[in-house]
Amino acid sequence: VAKTIQIGKSVFAANDDVAAANRKVLGEAGTLAINVMASPGAGKTTLILATAKALAPARVGVIEGDIAGDLDARVVESQGLPVVQVNTGGGCHLRADMIAAALPELPLSALDVLFIENVGNLVCPAGVALGEGRKVVVSSTPEGHDKPLKYPAVFREADAVVISKWDVAPYVGFDLEAYLGYLRQLSSSVPVFRLSARTGEGMSDWVSWLQEQVRTNGRSTTGS
Amino acid sequence: VAKTIQIGKSVFAANDDVAAANRKVLGEAGTLAINVMASPGAGKTTLILATAKALAPARVGVIEGDIAGDLDARVVESQGLPVVQVNTGGGCHLRADMIAAALPELPLSALDVLFIENVGNLVCPAGVALGEGRKVVVSSTPEGHDKPLKYPAVFREADAVVISKWDVAPYVGFDLEAYLGYLRQLSSSVPVFRLSARTGEGMSDWVSWLQEQVRTNGRSTTGS
Repeated sequence: VAKTIQIGKSVFAANDDVAAANRKVLGEAGTLAINVMASPGAGKTTLILATAKALAPARVGVIEGDIAGDLDARVVESQGLPVVQVNTGGGCHLRADMIAAALPELPLSALDVLFIENVGNLVCPAGVALGEGRKVVVSSTPEGHDKPLKYPAVFREADAVVISKWDVAPYVGFDLEAYLGYLRQLSSSVPVFRLSARTGEGMSDWVSWLQEQVRTNGRSTTGS
Repeated sequence: VAKTIQIGKSVFAANDDVAAANRKVLGEAGTLAINVMASPGAGKTTLILATAKALAPARVGVIEGDIAGDLDARVVESQGLPVVQVNTGGGCHLRADMIAAALPELPLSALDVLFIENVGNLVCPAGVALGEGRKVVVSSTPEGHDKPLKYPAVFREADAVVISKWDVAPYVGFDLEAYLGYLRQLSSSVPVFRLSARTGEGMSDWVSWLQEQVRTNGRSTTGS
């Protein structure tokens, strides 16, 4: 067991070094990278596409992380956004070296925001730095209100939480009060956005928050 | 990298040995163990509880796998079912040794079916034997119809696929034909059950399939 932990630690340390290099590249380009983490099917791609539209004229690029396939990248590309697909080959989260390989394929200096759509998973991406500026957890109403209780690590490190598929909340018996109760035990002040990317309901608060992050991106990079 | 792979292999080999021992214990008790794998929030616990009711007078027990907490175990216990909570302490799937530790805590010889609810994850549980008799993947309609395409490994090894939350399919734009198209590329003959554990719609076919698995359990154990 000790041996395994040791190896895990060195892997994480190496990952942190690469993440720091990514952060430097993104900082020099003035691009705010957002690590989007969620369960499979929480609506990450749909949210990213709707957000990119709402953020215009700010310019958005995307890194799509998936076990296999390029379905999401093709959807993003069809919307005219610069996109790179990263396949993890079975791995349950993106790593910093995968982002390092993807960044040169993107027109970074022309991008205000880079969404990094992580592999659909509420466990593995937690604690794995990619060089992102912000971490966002997306949690859809059909998944239920107990997700912050059951997957605390990923919620604890989130800079913002999006409750997606808000339009179907009445049909799936989502209990917002219970959800917020669990979440507030992990993170007392993280901003929470309830929205439906499909209907547009609630998008404006989320987009305003992002615009504020973009505005303060250069300053907070310098400050950290 | 070579070193990491080697360790991974030995871990899997050790896991397979423990899984074989679990299979023997379950076989001697005449208990059919079902490894239930799904995304977070696909409705595993709700399905297990509804199924346990429908299977009566067959007797059902549950092992609840979670990163942390015992919320689901308490829900299962409140329904009068024997249950053991396994916390993985951050691990993204159950392992055979966790099941080996849980089995002595259950009245196995009195149980016809043991549901093993894996950690909510469509990636990590794939390929990790627990000693189960059948593997079932639960995939809810709000997660979308592309799940078999994006998470092929777990669907490929399923003995049955449950499409859950069928009652909300019309509200979330679930495309059954596309889903089955992706699934059939991985597994041409796996049985698929569309159901809603909440409304009861579609439960009878699923329960009939399970009853058939219980009936043939002794025979197929002897045969393998």
